[in-house]
Amino acid sequence: MTNDQNYNFQPIGTLHSPYANRIDAPHQSTVTAGTETGESAVATLELADWLDERVLQDLEGFERIWLIYVFNRNDGWRSTVKPPRGGPKRGVLATRSPHRPNMIGLSAVKLEKIEGRKLYLLGVDLLEGTPILDIKPYVPYADAFPDSAAGWIDTHDLIQGRCSAPGPRKPRSNN
Amino acid sequence: MTNDQNYNFQPIGTLHSPYANRIDAPHQSTVTAGTETGESAVATLELADWLDERVLQDLEGFERIWLIYVFNRNDGWRSTVKPPRGGPKRGVLATRSPHRPNMIGLSAVKLEKIEGRKLYLLGVDLLEGTPILDIKPYVPYADAFPDSAAGWIDTHDLIQGRCSAPGPRKPRSNN
Repeated sequence: MTNDQNYNFQPIGTLHSPYANRIDAPHQSTVTAGTETGESAVATLELADWLDERVLQDLEGFERIWLIYVFNRNDGWRSTVKPPRGGPKRGVLATRSPHRPNMIGLSAVKLEKIEGRKLYLLGVDLLEGTPILDIKPYVPYADAFPDSAAGWIDTHDLIQGRCSAPGPRKPRSNN
Repeated sequence: MTNDQNYNFQPIGTLHSPYANRIDAPHQSTVTAGTETGESAVATLELADWLDERVLQDLEGFERIWLIYVFNRNDGWRSTVKPPRGGPKRGVLATRSPHRPNMIGLSAVKLEKIEGRKLYLLGVDLLEGTPILDIKPYVPYADAFPDSAAGWIDTHDLIQGRCSAPGPRKPRSNN
């Protein structure tokens, strides 16, 4: 049985971030050591007009939320990609590369506060204007597996030193 | 600035699962205590024809993977929903309910093995025929925050007892 049907999604919000270009953004939301200040950038997420503000009710109090979003700056994808941390090409679905068959991204970010239809977020590696498809609460018992083996990434980090994902090559100041 | 553009995705695969109906499936992939055997069900994920098998290269070795999928049995959504664990209605984006503005689901599942274009998975709470939009490796340093506060769920669990999400009400045998 195959799925020939396509699925269509309208963004539930738009992300506003200090990162204008991909080269400015860290490669994972938890990697900020490579940024100029070493601190997490503050980003905001504005709820789209077609949604009732009540969808956000009870979200405050969650320390982290998942953002599911569109890599909308992408212009294509390949079956294998060269990871920024180095080493040989890998199957694209074994990486978090934006150059994927469906250009969907996933990041756990810190929720600082919600004011009306606006969420204030920390630890965000997304670019200005990123379309957000979904927000979900981060729930440790369903989402947190700190000892989960991470295949080629574990092997690569053993050789290169732990958490070798590079930060931005050219940090962007806010001027 | 708003995002008026819609985004269209073609499934990268189809999930085959022992759960034919929603009532059979546990409410989170990590909750299997309520199932008949107490064990995780084995599910398979078949890569769609339009993809080269090489997209899966290097994925074996990851203990867990993320599935991003479509809740394709849904017939609507509401701004607030009554969680299965009880208590008052909550903003839908503060829950993992399938009845969301964009019917996208997210589950961390165990990867047992890959044979050709077929992935064998454990701990899957998805229904037979679920369209898969993306697969990502589970990477603890980006994804695992075991101590992350979980708002109303923490409060509710404190009162009801830890991890109170119910399993299936009517477990399904494999006969």
